[in-house]
Amino acid sequence: MTRPPLPRIMLEPMVRAALLEDFGRAGDVTTDAIVPVDARAKTVLAARQAGVLAGLDLARIAFDLIDPRIAFTAECRDGDALAPGDVIATIAGPARGILSAERVALNFLCHLSGVASATASIVDAVRAYKAEIVCTRKTTPGLRAVEKYAVRVGGGSNHRFGLDDAVLIKDNHVAIAGGVGEALRRARENVGHLVMIELEVDTLDQLAEALDIGVDAVLLDNMDAKTLKSAVAMVDGQAITEASGRITPATAPSIAASGVDLISVGWLTHSAAILDIGLDFLS
Amino acid sequence: MTRPPLPRIMLEPMVRAALLEDFGRAGDVTTDAIVPVDARAKTVLAARQAGVLAGLDLARIAFDLIDPRIAFTAECRDGDALAPGDVIATIAGPARGILSAERVALNFLCHLSGVASATASIVDAVRAYKAEIVCTRKTTPGLRAVEKYAVRVGGGSNHRFGLDDAVLIKDNHVAIAGGVGEALRRARENVGHLVMIELEVDTLDQLAEALDIGVDAVLLDNMDAKTLKSAVAMVDGQAITEASGRITPATAPSIAASGVDLISVGWLTHSAAILDIGLDFLS
Amino acid sequence: MTRPPLPRIMLEPMVRAALLEDFGRAGDVTTDAIVPVDARAKTVLAARQAGVLAGLDLARIAFDLIDPRIAFTAECRDGDALAPGDVIATIAGPARGILSAERVALNFLCHLSGVASATASIVDAVRAYKAEIVCTRKTTPGLRAVEKYAVRVGGGSNHRFGLDDAVLIKDNHVAIAGGVGEALRRARENVGHLVMIELEVDTLDQLAEALDIGVDAVLLDNMDAKTLKSAVAMVDGQAITEASGRITPATAPSIAASGVDLISVGWLTHSAAILDIGLDFLS
Amino acid sequence: MTRPPLPRIMLEPMVRAALLEDFGRAGDVTTDAIVPVDARAKTVLAARQAGVLAGLDLARIAFDLIDPRIAFTAECRDGDALAPGDVIATIAGPARGILSAERVALNFLCHLSGVASATASIVDAVRAYKAEIVCTRKTTPGLRAVEKYAVRVGGGSNHRFGLDDAVLIKDNHVAIAGGVGEALRRARENVGHLVMIELEVDTLDQLAEALDIGVDAVLLDNMDAKTLKSAVAMVDGQAITEASGRITPATAPSIAASGVDLISVGWLTHSAAILDIGLDFLS
Amino acid sequence: MTRPPLPRIMLEPMVRAALLEDFGRAGDVTTDAIVPVDARAKTVLAARQAGVLAGLDLARIAFDLIDPRIAFTAECRDGDALAPGDVIATIAGPARGILSAERVALNFLCHLSGVASATASIVDAVRAYKAEIVCTRKTTPGLRAVEKYAVRVGGGSNHRFGLDDAVLIKDNHVAIAGGVGEALRRARENVGHLVMIELEVDTLDQLAEALDIGVDAVLLDNMDAKTLKSAVAMVDGQAITEASGRITPATAPSIAASGVDLISVGWLTHSAAILDIGLDFLS
Amino acid sequence: MTRPPLPRIMLEPMVRAALLEDFGRAGDVTTDAIVPVDARAKTVLAARQAGVLAGLDLARIAFDLIDPRIAFTAECRDGDALAPGDVIATIAGPARGILSAERVALNFLCHLSGVASATASIVDAVRAYKAEIVCTRKTTPGLRAVEKYAVRVGGGSNHRFGLDDAVLIKDNHVAIAGGVGEALRRARENVGHLVMIELEVDTLDQLAEALDIGVDAVLLDNMDAKTLKSAVAMVDGQAITEASGRITPATAPSIAASGVDLISVGWLTHSAAILDIGLDFLS
Repeated sequence: MTRPPLPRIMLEPMVRAALLEDFGRAGDVTTDAIVPVDARAKTVLAARQAGVLAGLDLARIAFDLIDPRIAFTAECRDGDALAPGDVIATIAGPARGILSAERVALNFLCHLSGVASATASIVDAVRAYKAEIVCTRKTTPGLRAVEKYAVRVGGGSNHRFGLDDAVLIKDNHVAIAGGVGEALRRARENVGHLVMIELEVDTLDQLAEALDIGVDAVLLDNMDAKTLKSAVAMVDGQAITEASGRITPATAPSIAASGVDLISVGWLTHSAAILDIGLDFLS
Repeated sequence: MTRPPLPRIMLEPMVRAALLEDFGRAGDVTTDAIVPVDARAKTVLAARQAGVLAGLDLARIAFDLIDPRIAFTAECRDGDALAPGDVIATIAGPARGILSAERVALNFLCHLSGVASATASIVDAVRAYKAEIVCTRKTTPGLRAVEKYAVRVGGGSNHRFGLDDAVLIKDNHVAIAGGVGEALRRARENVGHLVMIELEVDTLDQLAEALDIGVDAVLLDNMDAKTLKSAVAMVDGQAITEASGRITPATAPSIAASGVDLISVGWLTHSAAILDIGLDFLS
Repeated sequence: MTRPPLPRIMLEPMVRAALLEDFGRAGDVTTDAIVPVDARAKTVLAARQAGVLAGLDLARIAFDLIDPRIAFTAECRDGDALAPGDVIATIAGPARGILSAERVALNFLCHLSGVASATASIVDAVRAYKAEIVCTRKTTPGLRAVEKYAVRVGGGSNHRFGLDDAVLIKDNHVAIAGGVGEALRRARENVGHLVMIELEVDTLDQLAEALDIGVDAVLLDNMDAKTLKSAVAMVDGQAITEASGRITPATAPSIAASGVDLISVGWLTHSAAILDIGLDFLS
Repeated sequence: MTRPPLPRIMLEPMVRAALLEDFGRAGDVTTDAIVPVDARAKTVLAARQAGVLAGLDLARIAFDLIDPRIAFTAECRDGDALAPGDVIATIAGPARGILSAERVALNFLCHLSGVASATASIVDAVRAYKAEIVCTRKTTPGLRAVEKYAVRVGGGSNHRFGLDDAVLIKDNHVAIAGGVGEALRRARENVGHLVMIELEVDTLDQLAEALDIGVDAVLLDNMDAKTLKSAVAMVDGQAITEASGRITPATAPSIAASGVDLISVGWLTHSAAILDIGLDFLS
Repeated sequence: MTRPPLPRIMLEPMVRAALLEDFGRAGDVTTDAIVPVDARAKTVLAARQAGVLAGLDLARIAFDLIDPRIAFTAECRDGDALAPGDVIATIAGPARGILSAERVALNFLCHLSGVASATASIVDAVRAYKAEIVCTRKTTPGLRAVEKYAVRVGGGSNHRFGLDDAVLIKDNHVAIAGGVGEALRRARENVGHLVMIELEVDTLDQLAEALDIGVDAVLLDNMDAKTLKSAVAMVDGQAITEASGRITPATAPSIAASGVDLISVGWLTHSAAILDIGLDFLS
Repeated sequence: MTRPPLPRIMLEPMVRAALLEDFGRAGDVTTDAIVPVDARAKTVLAARQAGVLAGLDLARIAFDLIDPRIAFTAECRDGDALAPGDVIATIAGPARGILSAERVALNFLCHLSGVASATASIVDAVRAYKAEIVCTRKTTPGLRAVEKYAVRVGGGSNHRFGLDDAVLIKDNHVAIAGGVGEALRRARENVGHLVMIELEVDTLDQLAEALDIGVDAVLLDNMDAKTLKSAVAMVDGQAITEASGRITPATAPSIAASGVDLISVGWLTHSAAILDIGLDFLS
C-alpha cells in the first residue's frame, strides 16, 4: 500500500520551529563546548519497543536543517512494523550537528510513531470487520497535519481535518436549531452540494427523522452494541454510519461487530504514548 | 503557593495558530450554516475525570480571539484539584463563537491538564521524600513552554528549557571527549561561570572521577535503587543528584528513597494521557 | 439566505500584511505632513457601479487596525445588490487614519465585490436551470479563502479549496496510471471513504468506463452542448456531473441546458474586473 | 532593454505561502494516491494566447520548492512577446512534484503575464507620444511588488510603491489643509527635500496656484483632452505632468496627444484578465 | 514642527518580538515569584542625561502589550529636549506588568533617543548653514524604519530607505559600467523618470562629466573643504549636492560651509550611544 | 579557545529579514540597471580599524542568500584581532549579488565586531584580576542572541539571556516584597532549585541580611571601590559577587581590584560604536 509522506514544504516549518525552540538564545552549549568542530560520528536510530514507524521525514529534515553534510540513510519506511532493536536509519557525519538535532528528531519520531502504533493496534483489533478506524479533531495544537498523517500510516483514515471541510451537526447545533430536521435543512440550504453533511444522533428516533430528510452520514454517539446494531439496520445503506464514544482496543471489536462503517477514536491523537526510539552512537 | 500563568503575549500566538489550523480555508461551516448570528448560549467547562487543572488561560484566549464579547468566568485556577463534574469556568455569549472555539480551547486544556495531573501523581507518590520531580526536553514540538508550565502547575520543577540554558554532558559527549575528566574540563573552560554543569554518569567510578574534578550536578542514569543509594552517599552534598531512566509513579518511591535531590521523568510531557474536560451547554 | 462572513481571525492577517505593504518604511508621508493630528472626517463608501457587495469586513478591519477610534457603520451587507451611488458604509473619525487606510480597504472591497459580481452575473444567466456555479483553484495567490468566500456571496458554490480536500483525477493522472480504471482503483484504495473522488473525462467512452467502476463525480471537460447532454443522460444520477472549459455568461445557459449539476468557471477568480467603489469625504 | 527579475529572496516567501495555501492539511491527495513515486514526466509551459510573458521566476521557484530535482529550462524570458503555442519552458523530472506545483506556478504566471500584456497594449497604443504609462497603488493585496514588476516588464513604469516613497496630495488633503497653497507649504516643510511632491489638481486655477508655489509633479485628474492640453501648456516644463482617470487602451492616445509626461492606469493591476498559459505533458 | 510618529501597526511587531526575546520560555520568573498579582505601582520614566526624546510610542506599546490596564501618561513628546531629571511619562498600574516590560521599553527608548540626540547635535552644529543632515543605510538590522524616524525626530532628514527607492551609483557601479557616462546612461534608460538618480563622484573631472550628461544629485565623497567648495560652485544648482565621509559634529561646520545641500552621516544610526533614561518607582 | 558560532538556523532568519528590509518593494534598482547579469567581481572584506572580528557567519549568509554561487572564503575567524588593512574574507562571483548584499553583510559585521572589540578592551583592562566581564539585558531589540555571542567572542561572558533563565531580584522587587529577606524567601519557594538566585544590594547591611538567608549571587550596585572591597570580604566565597554601575574601560581596573567575580557592563551592547570594515573591489 502506498502511504506517501507529506511534502517537505509542509514539514520543514514545524521542524525549524522545534529546533529554534530547543536552541533558545545560545544554541547547544554543551556540544559546542566539548565536541571538536571536525569530530565525526556514525549513529543509528533504533527501535526500543515494538510498534509502527511514522515521521521518518521529520527526523531527516531535523538533521538536514542543522547540517546538510549529515548523511541520513533510511533502513525502514513509514508504516513498517518495528521490533525492539530494529535499525530505522543510519545517520553519519559531523558529530556536533548529530548531537544538536538528536532530541528534536526523536521528539517528532517517537510521538508520531506512537500515534501510528496506537492506530495499528485498533485497526488490528477490528480487522475481522468492515469498520474503518478514523481520528478526530482532538489533536495536539500545531500538529494536526502530521498526527493525521500518522493515523493514515497506522492503517486508519481521517475524518474532518478542520471545521471547514465537512458539516458535522452536533447535539448543540441541533438544540439551537430546534430539532434535527431544521438543522439538516439549514445545512443543506447553506452549503454547496459538494460538502458532505453528517449528523450526530443519540437516539433511534433522531436517526429515523434524519433518514427521512436525508443525510450523508450519521454519527452514532455513545450507543451500546445492541442499539448500534439496530441503528445500522435502520440506516440500511442510506448513509455512512460512524460510531464514537471513548472507544479503546478492548471495546472496538464489539462496536465493529455492529456493522458500522467507521469508528472514530480521539485517543489516537490526544493520548497515545510515544513509541520509544533512541539514537545510538556506533563510533 | 503562587503559580503565575505565562503572560498572554507568550500564549496568544499558539492559540491563534491552533484556531487557524482548525478553521482552514472556510471557517466553521456547520455553525455558520445552522446557528443564527444573534443566538446566545450559556455553557460550562466541566471536568469529567479527577485531576489537576492547567491551561485555563489558553482556553480563555481561544474564546476571546474568536469573539471578545464572550464572557469567560473562571470558577477554578490552574493547580486546583478537580473532581468529576466540577465546573471550571462559565462561558456565555454569542453561540457561534463559543461553538467555533470550543475544540481548540479543549485541546489545550485537556492536554495541559493531563500533563499537570500526571506530574501531580508522581509528586504525590514521593511526597515522603525530599526528591523534586522534574521534566525533560522530551516535549511535544511547539509546546515546550506550556508543557513545562503545566509541570510546574502539577507541583514539579523544570530541568533545562533547551540546549542553551545549562550544560548537560551525556555519555556520547564523554565518549567523544575521551573521558569524564576531559569533558568536564572543556565545559568549564568554555562556558561562563554562571552556567550550571551537569554530568551523566553510569557507574560509581565515573562518579568518583567527576567529584574529584568538581561538577554542579550529576545525572545518575538507569541505576538500581542500591547503586543510587551508594551514589548519593558518595556525593555527600558536593553536587545536586538527579536520577533518571523510565521512572513511573510505581517505581518513583523506591528511587526517591535513595535520597536523590531530583527525579527526572520524560513521561510527564511525552506520554501523559489527556484529562477529560468537556463543554456543556446550559442554554 | 445566510452568508456569514469569515471570522476576523482569518481576515486580520491579510489586512495587516496589506497595510504594511502600503506603509513601507515611513508610513503615509503625505497625510502625516498635511493633516493635523486632531482633524476629523466624515466619509462614505459609495458604489460607482452596479454589482454585488463582498468584503465589507476586510474594509472594516483595515480602518480598525489603523485607528480603533474610527467608527465604521455598515449600511449594506455582503451579498447586497448595489446601484451606482449607493452608500455602503459611513466611516467617521480621525482624518489621518481614514486617509491612510482608504486604499487598502478599497483594494480588498473592489476586488472581492468584482468576484461576487462576476459570479452573480453567471448565476443569473443560468437561473432557469438546476446547475450550480462553482469556482476553481485558479485563484489569486494568497487570497484563495476570501475569493472563494466572494464566490459564495455572489451565489456560487466552492469546488475544492485545495489539493487536499477531494480527489480530482485529471487527464495527466489517467495517462500516468495507464487508464481510467487503474486511476480510479488507486484512488479508491488509497484514500479514506469520506473523501470524494471526481474524474475528468474527455469522451463518452471514458465516461462509460468510469461509471462501470463507480465514481462520485465526473468533470466533463470541454464537451459541446450535445455531447454534454448525452453524458448527463448516460450518468443518469449515478454521479454528480460537472461541466468545465472557458465558460462565460454568454455560453453558460447552453451548457446549463444539458442538465449538468455543476458548472465550474475559473474566470470568476482569475479574471474578474474590480467593482468600482470609492470613498467620498462629506466633511 | 534589461528588465532584471526580482531577487529570489523577495519572491520565495509568496510562492511558499501559495503552495501551502494549496496543499492545506493533507497535500496533493490525488497525485499521492495515483502517481508512483518514481514516475517521471516531461512537460512544457505553453502559451494559449498572444501576450507578454512575466513571472517566469515565480513558476521556477514553485517547482523547485516542491522538488529540487525538477529541471526547469526556460525557453523565453520575461518581456518576450508570446504567440499561441509558444513554448515558454520545459519542465522535466519527478511527475509527482510537477503535478503538485503546476497550479500555483500557473496562477502566478497567468496573472502576472496578464498584467504585463495589459500594460504592453496601452504602451503600444501611445507609442507615438512621449507619455510613459505608470501603474498606481490599486494593486492586489499581497502582490504589489510583483504586479509592479510585471508593469515594468510590459514596458510601463511605476508610480509610488506605497504611501511612504513620495508625497501625493489628493483633493481630500487639500480640503483639510484649506487650499492648495497651504497643503503644498505643509508638505514642503515637513518632508526632506529628497522626497518628490506631487499634487492632484482638478482645475486650471488650482494648477496656476500650484505652479506659483512650486511643485515637482501635478496629477491632472479626469480632465478632458482639451483641458489637458491647456494644462500641459501652462506647466511648460516646470513640473512633471500626469494624467489619470479610468484610461483604457481606447482612450489613451487622445490623452497622450495632450503632451503629458505620464499616464497612470489603475486597470493594469486591478482588472487585467489573466494571460492563458498551460502545462502540457509530453511524456 | 509636526513630527508624527509611525503608526502602531508598524511598531507593534517589533515590540512584540522584543518582549518575546526577553521572556524566553518561562517569562519573568523573578517578578512572578516575588510580586503579588494584585500589587500596584506608580512609576516615572525619567531622563538621566540631556538629549532629545524619541521612541515614546514604542515604550507605550511595550507596557500595553504586557497589560492593557497599565496607564501610560506621556509628559513629553518625541522631539522634546530633555534635561537630566525630566519626567518623560508616568506609568501606573499592575506592578508585575510594569516590571516585566520595563527593560524592553527602555531598550527602545534609550536607543532611539540616542539616535535623535546624536542627530540634533550635528544639526545644531550646522544651523548657520543651509545643509540638511541626512542618515544612510548603515542602520541596525531590523530597526531601519524606527532609526530613520529617530533621525527625523532629531531634526535630520532621510536619504534612501533601501536599495529600491532611488538610484545611487557608487564607484564600483561606475567601474563595472566602464565610466560615469555609461553608468548614468544605463540608469536613465532602465528606471522610470520618477526615480531620482544620484552619482557618487570622487573628483571634479567626474563631476564635470556627470553634469554634462545630467544627474539629479551628486554625492561628493571624502572631499576636503576646498574641493567641496569648488564642486558646489561647479554644480551651480544643476543638481542636489551631498557631502559624505566620516563626518562628525566637529567636522560638520567646515563641510557645511562649502554650501552643500546635504551632509550624510552614517554615525547617527550605527554608532550613537544610548541616551540614558530610567524607570523610577514612586510607590 | 573554542568559540563556536551560532548555528545557521538561528542566524538565517535575521539576515533574511535584514535583506528584505533593504530590498523594499523593488530590490536593488541601481545594480539591476547598471551591472550586466553576467558581470563578475572579486572583492575583499577588509578592516579599516583595529579591533576584534565577530559576525563573519552573518556576512557569509547574506551573500549566500542573495546568490549561492558567490564564493565566500574566510581569511580570519571570529575572535581574531584585526589591524587596519587586514583581509577578513575574499568574496568572488556574480557582481550583482555581491553589490546587493554588501550593505547588509557590513551592517551585521561592523556592529557585532564593534561589540566584540568593546568587550575585548575591557577584558584587557582587567586581565590582571580574576574578574570576568559580563553583559546585561540592555541589548538592541531583536539582536540579543548575536550581541551576546559577540560578547563571548570578545572574551566576555553572558549574564542572563532574558527574564526567564535566572532570578535577579532588584531594588523594586525588594521594595514590593517588603525587604531582602522576604524577597529571597519568595524566590526560593517559587522557583525550582536548578534556578540561580541573585540579589541586588545597595548597602553592606542588605548584604549581611542576604548572606544570612543564603543567596547564589549578589549584585553590588554602584558601590565605590572601598565599599566593594568590604563587600567581597564579607561575602568570603559564600556567593558569587558581581559589580555593576556605568563601568568603563577606565574605571574597570579599580573595580576589578576589589576582588569581585563579575563586572557587568551594559555599554558593551547598548553603546559600542561599530568597528569600521569595508568591502573593496579588486576586479
